[in-house]
Amino acid sequence: MVDRVKTGIPGMDDILYGGIPRRNIVLLSGGPGTGKSIFSYQYLWNGLREGEPGVFVALEEHPVQVRINMAQFGWDVREYERQGLFAVVDAFTSGIGEAAKKERYVVTDPEDVGLLIDVLKEAIRDVGAKRVAVDSVSTLYLAKPVLARRTVMLLKRVLSGLGTTSILVSQVSVTERGFGGPGVEHAADGIIRLDLDEVDGELVRSLIIWKMRGTKHSMRRHPFEITDKGIIVYPDKVVRIGRRVSIE
Amino acid sequence: MVDRVKTGIPGMDDILYGGIPRRNIVLLSGGPGTGKSIFSYQYLWNGLREGEPGVFVALEEHPVQVRINMAQFGWDVREYERQGLFAVVDAFTSGIGEAAKKERYVVTDPEDVGLLIDVLKEAIRDVGAKRVAVDSVSTLYLAKPVLARRTVMLLKRVLSGLGTTSILVSQVSVTERGFGGPGVEHAADGIIRLDLDEVDGELVRSLIIWKMRGTKHSMRRHPFEITDKGIIVYPDKVVRIGRRVSIE
Amino acid sequence: MVDRVKTGIPGMDDILYGGIPRRNIVLLSGGPGTGKSIFSYQYLWNGLREGEPGVFVALEEHPVQVRINMAQFGWDVREYERQGLFAVVDAFTSGIGEAAKKERYVVTDPEDVGLLIDVLKEAIRDVGAKRVAVDSVSTLYLAKPVLARRTVMLLKRVLSGLGTTSILVSQVSVTERGFGGPGVEHAADGIIRLDLDEVDGELVRSLIIWKMRGTKHSMRRHPFEITDKGIIVYPDKVVRIGRRVSIE
Amino acid sequence: MVDRVKTGIPGMDDILYGGIPRRNIVLLSGGPGTGKSIFSYQYLWNGLREGEPGVFVALEEHPVQVRINMAQFGWDVREYERQGLFAVVDAFTSGIGEAAKKERYVVTDPEDVGLLIDVLKEAIRDVGAKRVAVDSVSTLYLAKPVLARRTVMLLKRVLSGLGTTSILVSQVSVTERGFGGPGVEHAADGIIRLDLDEVDGELVRSLIIWKMRGTKHSMRRHPFEITDKGIIVYPDKVVRIGRRVSIE
Amino acid sequence: MVDRVKTGIPGMDDILYGGIPRRNIVLLSGGPGTGKSIFSYQYLWNGLREGEPGVFVALEEHPVQVRINMAQFGWDVREYERQGLFAVVDAFTSGIGEAAKKERYVVTDPEDVGLLIDVLKEAIRDVGAKRVAVDSVSTLYLAKPVLARRTVMLLKRVLSGLGTTSILVSQVSVTERGFGGPGVEHAADGIIRLDLDEVDGELVRSLIIWKMRGTKHSMRRHPFEITDKGIIVYPDKVVRIGRRVSIE
Amino acid sequence: MVDRVKTGIPGMDDILYGGIPRRNIVLLSGGPGTGKSIFSYQYLWNGLREGEPGVFVALEEHPVQVRINMAQFGWDVREYERQGLFAVVDAFTSGIGEAAKKERYVVTDPEDVGLLIDVLKEAIRDVGAKRVAVDSVSTLYLAKPVLARRTVMLLKRVLSGLGTTSILVSQVSVTERGFGGPGVEHAADGIIRLDLDEVDGELVRSLIIWKMRGTKHSMRRHPFEITDKGIIVYPDKVVRIGRRVSIE
Repeated sequence: MVDRVKTGIPGMDDILYGGIPRRNIVLLSGGPGTGKSIFSYQYLWNGLREGEPGVFVALEEHPVQVRINMAQFGWDVREYERQGLFAVVDAFTSGIGEAAKKERYVVTDPEDVGLLIDVLKEAIRDVGAKRVAVDSVSTLYLAKPVLARRTVMLLKRVLSGLGTTSILVSQVSVTERGFGGPGVEHAADGIIRLDLDEVDGELVRSLIIWKMRGTKHSMRRHPFEITDKGIIVYPDKVVRIGRRVSIE
Repeated sequence: MVDRVKTGIPGMDDILYGGIPRRNIVLLSGGPGTGKSIFSYQYLWNGLREGEPGVFVALEEHPVQVRINMAQFGWDVREYERQGLFAVVDAFTSGIGEAAKKERYVVTDPEDVGLLIDVLKEAIRDVGAKRVAVDSVSTLYLAKPVLARRTVMLLKRVLSGLGTTSILVSQVSVTERGFGGPGVEHAADGIIRLDLDEVDGELVRSLIIWKMRGTKHSMRRHPFEITDKGIIVYPDKVVRIGRRVSIE
Repeated sequence: MVDRVKTGIPGMDDILYGGIPRRNIVLLSGGPGTGKSIFSYQYLWNGLREGEPGVFVALEEHPVQVRINMAQFGWDVREYERQGLFAVVDAFTSGIGEAAKKERYVVTDPEDVGLLIDVLKEAIRDVGAKRVAVDSVSTLYLAKPVLARRTVMLLKRVLSGLGTTSILVSQVSVTERGFGGPGVEHAADGIIRLDLDEVDGELVRSLIIWKMRGTKHSMRRHPFEITDKGIIVYPDKVVRIGRRVSIE
Repeated sequence: MVDRVKTGIPGMDDILYGGIPRRNIVLLSGGPGTGKSIFSYQYLWNGLREGEPGVFVALEEHPVQVRINMAQFGWDVREYERQGLFAVVDAFTSGIGEAAKKERYVVTDPEDVGLLIDVLKEAIRDVGAKRVAVDSVSTLYLAKPVLARRTVMLLKRVLSGLGTTSILVSQVSVTERGFGGPGVEHAADGIIRLDLDEVDGELVRSLIIWKMRGTKHSMRRHPFEITDKGIIVYPDKVVRIGRRVSIE
Repeated sequence: MVDRVKTGIPGMDDILYGGIPRRNIVLLSGGPGTGKSIFSYQYLWNGLREGEPGVFVALEEHPVQVRINMAQFGWDVREYERQGLFAVVDAFTSGIGEAAKKERYVVTDPEDVGLLIDVLKEAIRDVGAKRVAVDSVSTLYLAKPVLARRTVMLLKRVLSGLGTTSILVSQVSVTERGFGGPGVEHAADGIIRLDLDEVDGELVRSLIIWKMRGTKHSMRRHPFEITDKGIIVYPDKVVRIGRRVSIE
Repeated sequence: MVDRVKTGIPGMDDILYGGIPRRNIVLLSGGPGTGKSIFSYQYLWNGLREGEPGVFVALEEHPVQVRINMAQFGWDVREYERQGLFAVVDAFTSGIGEAAKKERYVVTDPEDVGLLIDVLKEAIRDVGAKRVAVDSVSTLYLAKPVLARRTVMLLKRVLSGLGTTSILVSQVSVTERGFGGPGVEHAADGIIRLDLDEVDGELVRSLIIWKMRGTKHSMRRHPFEITDKGIIVYPDKVVRIGRRVSIE
């Protein structure tokens, strides 16, 4: 019997056939505006509600803004932070600015992956984290693509080694069909792709689980919505874009 | 209740479900001739009419030409400049030429982003700006694409930090389908894409809101026109180009 | 009321709704054999006939050949040169050769854009030019594409600053769909694209005005012909190549 | 009569017309999530069951994780390791960490291909290996593609020279249609491609034998499944994607 | 009345509306196996028969082989060489080998374009050449594409300046749709494209005149054949490959 | 009457209208698994049977393996080697290993093209070779593509100069539509392309003669098979893939 972590995102655990197998490192890949950050917030928040502490690594936004963003969906993490059950790792401000001085987990040089990992380890141990989200890993190798695989492998060893079940947000360009490059795609235990496609003048949201080690999962592309309470996935619906195939 | 900034562009606030959420930094992306500068002018002018001071950062045109361009649509900003409610930051002339000597906010070296930001901050504070348009950010990293994300992040921190709701014009080539590169696309709070497509021998104008943090918005591609009074968006019409999809 | 410069090319001013707004710098973009040079000659010749002096900057052909080429269409500029109403800037020979010694405006190093601009300014002032054509600007940055935008901006400031309404010829490869690169496309006030397409075994000529600051214009692709009296555009005909769209 | 090695994967030997010709080095190429590692595990496990010792070269996963992954399909290799019939070459940990200290075959610098080959040779000789799987060779030249062919040639000489029939896992990006580059594709004795395609909203698994020296083989694309007992290939079914052809 | 040079290739002068305007430099562009060299030989041979001396610049073949190739079509140039009416410039052997020692016009370093031009000038003057073919110019800049335009411009000045009507063979790859790059395409006075296309399992030969300064010409794609007497073009037939267009 | 070399491959000489014109250097181009090596073996073997000595240059395989590969089709060259009528040039082992010591023609540094050519000349002279196959030339410039043309030209001069009729195997990637690059394609006297295409779930073998100097040839794409007695080409069948054309 596989030990699973429930995402708590409506419909998502259905298509995962119960949740993400524990200790998996999942690449959450998508273009701009596809809902990657919201998915990460919701995953961590649902963990907190289920008694699983969590850590959010902020590489794209100020930690203050992250808390505001989460609160807009009704996910107020401040009480959990006070109780030592949740932490934001600030890999955004470099510790510069008034607000940053109030942060506890600050990576003074966000380009130093070794330093980031040290701070991350400390945060995971302090709160006893079971879930981690890194938003985004792409930032770590945007300027040096050859380091992509090495960076993801490093994170994977630490996150899996410390027993967490984690999400690595991977930003791809709106015109890009891959998941973030060959090294990254193969290193992850799972890949979930979020898409926003213009089809006949309308934007359509869908996601697909491309791989997930240790479990079967839906092999279909499902529509989803972003509501003011977060993401809702429709496990019984399929989005069909493209060519036909026949198996005879 | 989301605090919103009305663009005042006919039809635009309808498809934004009320306006741009305050403090958002919006990437306005499009090819040549799509109307990006006109959109920016109209956004700032409507702010002035609603009592919201503004700043225009001129990177592509001489400040004198900017004022002439705006006046051609009936938007004469000179009175607002005299009252200290509007400013043009001259990041075009480097202070060279007779006309440039009359400008108050001059970036003597437009390639020095740090200097640009200092002058911009000063202008924002002087006029108490609520709206800013930078036309265009692409110029800032045309020769050094690896700096794109860093430049946009820097601008975002300053513009959002000072409380403005701002537009960053992003120039893409006529054949390019993205919004200006992965780093830029993910850094912005919102993305509006303006398009000019040749369809069956005729040029068609349309726009689509690709993402907008903090609000729902139309998920459709809408036609728009450029008239002698500025842009008019048609919220009830949809431009359909391309493939079919089915959701079952 | 917009002040316009009539191209005098049959049909062209119709689709420009009267002509090119004065002081605009227009990118005339097209592949090999599309008629860019002929368009430029005809534009300048018609200026001379209307009392507007002109300058042709020869970067692709020997000035002697330019005069021969023009004469083949019945446009003999020599009398206008004698009267000081027309000039050819020789940015082709570097002043080498017997024929070159008879030229008055010679750019001794055509790769030195600063020098080119000095000679061009002198020629414009001497003849009191109202129209200029540069054939081609592409030559100026063929070997150094990163300089493209800077070069076009420099020319634009000088040409517009001296009050001329000018054409910059932009050479694109036969397989290239853009207008000469993002920096160039956005810097111009107007873009006219000349095309030569093989359609079902026959070569078809057409042109489209992609943008033109300060005026409305035809939004359609029009066929044109090259006759022994120059270009004729058909404003009432449309060339339709490609996909359908619907606006509902 | 060709001497063949049976993969033991249900259906696979049918489409190989009996198995892989002995001493062939087979490139197993596919994108993320296509089942390359599972294929390799199953190939080695079936060897052990048939009395053929084997070696697994772990470049992507910790040796401990490799054993866990195999056990999830019911393939517990530990008893075979104790009997000296199976070995995992650890080219992942560099010998760092508690668990690594228990490994017998450790490549202390996985980037040193010469060192890797020395350790591999030792392991092959110790267990008398008849089957080897390297997961993946792509890792060996991800950062230096020009070395790809040389690396594969080196491995081929050693693996074939020592009499093994081996699988080299080749990771390609999800959008890539080749097998890992021209040098690699031509160096291998056989190529098996595993695919995961999204067709009309559903993920479809299929494989095709592109070449196999020394034997005829199925020239069709076959569907396969990944079950909790490993891969099952359907030799009587064909997956048809794409264009028509006629032979007259 | 345009002074024209007849190619003498059956059908070709018809679609050129009488021949190539004198002094034009024509780019003869095509992939491997399209008949570019044969076209050049036939053009020069027909000149000799009409009393127009010629020069062939051999960059791809040994001069001895060039003479053999020509003789295979019944075009034996040796008598004309003896009479001082034809010359082969040897830019192939560097003067190495027994056979090369018998050549009169040898470019000792074929990579030195200046030297090539000196030898070419000498040959043109010696035989009083009216026609020249350079097979191929591509060889001159294969390793240094940035020099392409400069090289073609240099040749054009010399060849046109000395009064010849010349063909520059441009090799493009079989998959390439252009004519040899933007710099080259625009520098030539004329472009003739030879094509060999696989259409529905059969190879089809066709050519199209893309541009020709100083004359109107067929705007259609014509089929041609290579017979044992050279090329025959079919001016009354059209090869139609591709999309539809409508002019309304 | 053209002097021809019969390939002896069933059906192949029919579509060559009698064979390869003597002294031609033919590029045999194809992706992995298309049968290039088998074609080369069969060509040489049939020469031996017809009394024409031959040389095989082994760049991809150990000479011992080459002999084994040939023997699998019933082509045992060892007796011919003993008689001094056949030779394998070992450009694979660098002379390292026991087996290599028994080879007579060893290129001690396969990256030194000059050395390779010296050994090749010696082998050709020793056996009086009329046929040579180089498998593959691609290996010689895989790491330095700019040397491709120069390498092929060098080989062509030697092979043609010594009177052989030769095959140069050119490896292209499975996704590549060309023949090995512009320099290589134009340098060869003939081009034969072998293809393996997946069409509607089935692999289809076909070949096409793209060019062949000195002879007419079939202009169609023909299917072929690889049997245990070698390649069989079907001259009366055509493989049709793709678009339509009309000649009117």
